[in-house]
Amino acid sequence: MDADSRARRWERWEGHAALPLGIASLLYLAGYATHVLATGLPPLAHDVLRAVTGAAWAVFVIDYAVHWRLSGRGPGFVTRHWLDTLVVLLPLLWPLRIVRLYDVVLRRHGRPRLTLHARVVLYSGLSALLLGFSGALAVYQQERGAPHATIRSFGDSVWWTCSTLATVGYGDVAPVTPWGRTIAVGLMACGLALLGAVTGSFSSLMLRRFSREGDENGESPPGR
Amino acid sequence: MDADSRARRWERWEGHAALPLGIASLLYLAGYATHVLATGLPPLAHDVLRAVTGAAWAVFVIDYAVHWRLSGRGPGFVTRHWLDTLVVLLPLLWPLRIVRLYDVVLRRHGRPRLTLHARVVLYSGLSALLLGFSGALAVYQQERGAPHATIRSFGDSVWWTCSTLATVGYGDVAPVTPWGRTIAVGLMACGLALLGAVTGSFSSLMLRRFSREGDENGESPPGR
Amino acid sequence: MDADSRARRWERWEGHAALPLGIASLLYLAGYATHVLATGLPPLAHDVLRAVTGAAWAVFVIDYAVHWRLSGRGPGFVTRHWLDTLVVLLPLLWPLRIVRLYDVVLRRHGRPRLTLHARVVLYSGLSALLLGFSGALAVYQQERGAPHATIRSFGDSVWWTCSTLATVGYGDVAPVTPWGRTIAVGLMACGLALLGAVTGSFSSLMLRRFSREGDENGESPPGR
Amino acid sequence: MDADSRARRWERWEGHAALPLGIASLLYLAGYATHVLATGLPPLAHDVLRAVTGAAWAVFVIDYAVHWRLSGRGPGFVTRHWLDTLVVLLPLLWPLRIVRLYDVVLRRHGRPRLTLHARVVLYSGLSALLLGFSGALAVYQQERGAPHATIRSFGDSVWWTCSTLATVGYGDVAPVTPWGRTIAVGLMACGLALLGAVTGSFSSLMLRRFSREGDENGESPPGR
Repeated sequence: MDADSRARRWERWEGHAALPLGIASLLYLAGYATHVLATGLPPLAHDVLRAVTGAAWAVFVIDYAVHWRLSGRGPGFVTRHWLDTLVVLLPLLWPLRIVRLYDVVLRRHGRPRLTLHARVVLYSGLSALLLGFSGALAVYQQERGAPHATIRSFGDSVWWTCSTLATVGYGDVAPVTPWGRTIAVGLMACGLALLGAVTGSFSSLMLRRFSREGDENGESPPGR
Repeated sequence: MDADSRARRWERWEGHAALPLGIASLLYLAGYATHVLATGLPPLAHDVLRAVTGAAWAVFVIDYAVHWRLSGRGPGFVTRHWLDTLVVLLPLLWPLRIVRLYDVVLRRHGRPRLTLHARVVLYSGLSALLLGFSGALAVYQQERGAPHATIRSFGDSVWWTCSTLATVGYGDVAPVTPWGRTIAVGLMACGLALLGAVTGSFSSLMLRRFSREGDENGESPPGR
Repeated sequence: MDADSRARRWERWEGHAALPLGIASLLYLAGYATHVLATGLPPLAHDVLRAVTGAAWAVFVIDYAVHWRLSGRGPGFVTRHWLDTLVVLLPLLWPLRIVRLYDVVLRRHGRPRLTLHARVVLYSGLSALLLGFSGALAVYQQERGAPHATIRSFGDSVWWTCSTLATVGYGDVAPVTPWGRTIAVGLMACGLALLGAVTGSFSSLMLRRFSREGDENGESPPGR
Repeated sequence: MDADSRARRWERWEGHAALPLGIASLLYLAGYATHVLATGLPPLAHDVLRAVTGAAWAVFVIDYAVHWRLSGRGPGFVTRHWLDTLVVLLPLLWPLRIVRLYDVVLRRHGRPRLTLHARVVLYSGLSALLLGFSGALAVYQQERGAPHATIRSFGDSVWWTCSTLATVGYGDVAPVTPWGRTIAVGLMACGLALLGAVTGSFSSLMLRRFSREGDENGESPPGR
């Protein structure tokens, strides 16, 4: 299999896999969220939810394996595609791979309609939102049974996540368990980088808006 | 109605509407502030204040409707002009539209006198200031009656808003009610983006100041 | 007096005034610091300190008046040179004018030796340091007698100032008096902008360091 | 000794010293960490650990002395190479000098394989990680015996360090001793600057990723 045919098959796979992967991602998050939040469900329902998230994970693993095979590489694939490897190990991190969805969408629809900075704001913001939701769920799951915990409801956890991602950090509620804090540190690392990209791009958008006289982006006369 | 005549009518409308919109915006904020802060007023005065804010809101709605009609679009107007739509639904967010005022002022007075970065600092800062004031009012209204609230006076609320917008977040006072926290998250999202623009532009101003030998901006010899 | 001779006289004045202004600035800060911190001094010593800071303030006022006269402007001078006006009203803010010292130094010594970003880091950092010290003094003066105050020593106040300027904001100590909080908000506004400039410039320095193979700034072979 | 031969000898020394310096750096950190964390060891073991860290420090001092001699300068070396001077005085700060390792690696292997921004993210991130670990150790050593301390385990100290470096600053745990707070301020100053470089470079990476259609960095077709 030469490099050219490999590239073609890789692209064809990505086109085929995009929709199932997207559905599996949403199913994974929905199944996990229901598992964490709906504590009143019968045990059977939790088994079903576990099966759903397991199946979604399996889709991630299959996609990873096919990519590995199509790449024609040995173990080097694991480090070179470290983000994919990370997502296969910790599927809750899939929002980090949302940029990849962007690549696929782009290949289908040709040139993007939004400006560069608007795209970064949109994709990073969406990615941070989904990651923040996953993080709030995971921290809540660790903290809810802990003694002396200050995060006692999912609302507290969401409030804590927002104040963390904005780097405000009131500290009125904060994780106290070792695992809760570990997840929190991961959330800071991922989320702050993403939100730094959002803020930086938003500044650039503002600057461009102010550097033009007219404005094609929303409130300009329609005839222009 | 062709596109050219539409653009002309759009611009003429914006010119006519700028002053009433500005007055309505200030009346809305003043009315809301008095309603929240002057708790000792007789019920009749609060009815008057409600009427004032309602009338100001009506001005926003009329402006939105005229823009929609002049745009010659169908429902696509709602998403394309999403900022205007948001302000019509939540009039307290009108400071976000202060950039639009800038466009109108610019069209009247020709070229701006301030440099690009100074304009971004000025407009973003003003916008953040007004938004922070509105946010402090709204959070105070939610929190003041809540049990275990730490925000107990409007001064506390302003102090909390400042520490939030600066991303310092001491946490000595913080909202505890669900609605107060929801408003707080919105304030973080809007305010931090605006202040990111202010800080970034200020850095650029400093850099430009240091990259020149002379200085035309304030302390230079008057003869240059 | 034509514009050219005005510019010459302005520059000559700045050259003459630089040294006395620098001494007055340091005397003001030293006098104020001693007044706040040395509570055990006899009343007479505090009178002397008040006289010293008063004299330093007078130097600022004279410099402002001469500049106003030399500018040949009317009341427009007050708004155009708003930073000077602010410093005359609140002399504790003089570190904000440290950039001006830079202009004078530059005019004497010709081309600067440090790179652009290194100069921004140096001057903004120095300015933030002095401003932070002044802010810590002023907040301590407001808070030390207040009931329920958490800032109880000057060390607490310095710790609070550092955590504020870094936007960390632990909240273990925080001002509780209205005036203490007002000073705190001013400190956030000034300090964060300055430190934003420092961080941004430091990033640029790092980038430039990594974009070259060799390195002329500190650890390179001496022969280059 | 002329400048050319000095430059050659300087480079040769750096090549020879790189490996011993790297080993000494890791030994210093490992020895200090064991000394702080393994409180149950017999006194003899602590003497051995003190000897190990002392020997590593001696390696730093020797390297500094050789550099000074090879530079052919007088006392000016101390201020010109202020970062090296600082590291010799406070060896815990050696992660700050990790950029220098980069120079040496570069000289051996020729052109770097990673892009500019990826290198800044990698080196600054690694530097911040090691510095954060050292800071957590040093703060924990100061705080663990203090009355009313909130940092009571090394886990608390790591959690506090992460929330500080991310500028979140919950304040649920915070240093209370003067030395602990002094170390904390140093950690803020170093760490925030480094992490500002990381975040800024990450934003640039995101922007570049979005500004291209294809992508050579991880998930692209292998044939490109």
